[in-house]
Amino acid sequence: MQKFTKDIEMNIIKGIAGTFKRHPGQLNNICEADAEILDFKDQEADYLVFKTDGIKEEINEGLYEDPYLIGWMAVTVTVSDLAAVGSEPIGILLNLNIPANPSNFWVENFKTGINEACNHYNVPVLGGDTNFDPALSISSTGIATLSGKKPMMRKNIHPGDLLYATGKFGQGSAFAYSRLINSSTKIDYKPYARLKESWKIREFATACIDTSDGVFPALSVLCNLNQIGVKIKNPIQQLLCNRSLAIYNSSPVPAWMFLAGPHGEYELIFSIPPSNKKRLELLSHDQNFPFIFLGEVIEDKKIAFITEGMGCISEISEISNMFYQVNGNVQEYYKMLFERHNQWLNKETAII
Amino acid sequence: MQKFTKDIEMNIIKGIAGTFKRHPGQLNNICEADAEILDFKDQEADYLVFKTDGIKEEINEGLYEDPYLIGWMAVTVTVSDLAAVGSEPIGILLNLNIPANPSNFWVENFKTGINEACNHYNVPVLGGDTNFDPALSISSTGIATLSGKKPMMRKNIHPGDLLYATGKFGQGSAFAYSRLINSSTKIDYKPYARLKESWKIREFATACIDTSDGVFPALSVLCNLNQIGVKIKNPIQQLLCNRSLAIYNSSPVPAWMFLAGPHGEYELIFSIPPSNKKRLELLSHDQNFPFIFLGEVIEDKKIAFITEGMGCISEISEISNMFYQVNGNVQEYYKMLFERHNQWLNKETAII
Repeated sequence: MQKFTKDIEMNIIKGIAGTFKRHPGQLNNICEADAEILDFKDQEADYLVFKTDGIKEEINEGLYEDPYLIGWMAVTVTVSDLAAVGSEPIGILLNLNIPANPSNFWVENFKTGINEACNHYNVPVLGGDTNFDPALSISSTGIATLSGKKPMMRKNIHPGDLLYATGKFGQGSAFAYSRLINSSTKIDYKPYARLKESWKIREFATACIDTSDGVFPALSVLCNLNQIGVKIKNPIQQLLCNRSLAIYNSSPVPAWMFLAGPHGEYELIFSIPPSNKKRLELLSHDQNFPFIFLGEVIEDKKIAFITEGMGCISEISEISNMFYQVNGNVQEYYKMLFERHNQWLNKETAII
Repeated sequence: MQKFTKDIEMNIIKGIAGTFKRHPGQLNNICEADAEILDFKDQEADYLVFKTDGIKEEINEGLYEDPYLIGWMAVTVTVSDLAAVGSEPIGILLNLNIPANPSNFWVENFKTGINEACNHYNVPVLGGDTNFDPALSISSTGIATLSGKKPMMRKNIHPGDLLYATGKFGQGSAFAYSRLINSSTKIDYKPYARLKESWKIREFATACIDTSDGVFPALSVLCNLNQIGVKIKNPIQQLLCNRSLAIYNSSPVPAWMFLAGPHGEYELIFSIPPSNKKRLELLSHDQNFPFIFLGEVIEDKKIAFITEGMGCISEISEISNMFYQVNGNVQEYYKMLFERHNQWLNKETAII
């Protein structure tokens, strides 16, 4: 298998997808938004929104095995992207490749996962395609509208803007650790697409992205697209959710690694101009949304953060590329993250 | 692997999909139309239309290997279903699971197949999701609108209605024969979704379905849903396209087998009341659409047809179930079709 980084992977995808016929009303270029946005009615703020996403890799890697989780995630991965642009889902279509003779237990729990997610987000299933295949894989396509509002994209962030998140981080990494690194730990994983939050955030956020691939990968996308850097102000440990803290407190894993991806927590990261700070804090308080302040956007194209009491600086795509540099080998990835941590420990400590 | 027929497969799918939350504005129940139809604006004839479909099985079986064909079909399978309801595509999203290091030849031909299909149908690619997986599989989701017209569904056919098709049959079977049964024959395969035809047909057809799974499977769906039968008036040999005739004239395969599926030709089969016969013939002449008269809808729930000079009668799902009764084994299926043919030859000849 060819070695390639996240950036190279993105180039392969662009090399294939970049030549396809495009819709003249499409607002976003490739990768500029979490979902595809179409100016539908030739009116400034009346959009159709589309997204297709799947959970094949998570199943292949042994991360998702529980049929309830597979059903829940099949819906959540796509709704999360519809949320990241601030849209209101019409419904989803499901592509199911499932074994020809699944057990009743499997089918019932899979269906329950899908149904509970659809009910939670109030998103109906419009249709689908079911094939029988020994290699389980599921994808879904979501359709949404956005009326009277501008969609949030990944662009339009400027130095000085403030970065927030809809919740604390690390649930996805903690779960991956418990499944793939240390199976003596048991961690539940049930992320929620931040749909309701997004309908409020869209009123004043300049850009938004979900952390489906982890926090550093999300920041890397924002930094690359906008040619900016990010300074995370709070020590990473303070940004970890309870499930991550359970692993953090009982393992050698440093705090920043819980944000490295590629298995994320489906929070939204969004930027606001400093002038909207008060409005955001009021909203967070009024709606009981536990928004987290991350830090600020800087001109220098670096990601700066504090972990284990030390200031660290990384290139913007450095951390998000690591998983691909080891061809997705989880054990090697885990080792590589520690090697990078030791480099910071030994010589690169910086005051930020 | 469990033995099951097309009907049982449909029940498994309904058992999974039948419990999902549904949209209150959805016009069709499960399987009642080739695509999903949503009453979008609370106006009688203003619909959003969705369809997701894939070509995993065709790739797994060795039927599709040429990357151009894979690209062409990834678009065509979905556009064909959008056509079957008479809708006008907005665009498609592509789910690509492709090897991590495809050759330039492969990528270029795959892209060309997608691009030529998108240009032919005037359907833009709105977005997609690309994953790297050694097991190639492609699916696409199409979105369309239908304004000022009623969508065509698979229902509302009555005894006495006339059945037509947008073109001659058997291209899919001829190609499968050349790939899987007798590789000394070479047959091109490039079906076209009948989009432009559907925009005319929708003006007076009562029901419509595409022959993506073959002609007998399409008729079986219509017969089951509407509790009707079909009498095909013209001898099947007269319904075969040139590619099928090339195989027909040089092999022992009887004419009806080219219509048995499960690999179809993506024509549309549609019903009209006898009162619309003149209008249809005028349209066919004016637009240079080579519509084919199939026969008429009957009360008796059978499919009657003439092949090799003999009248045959089959149960409505009998032929479409055969491929599933042999668990998709092509050689056994081919044998089973001949066994059935010999039964007709030996004792079941009927005058129709």
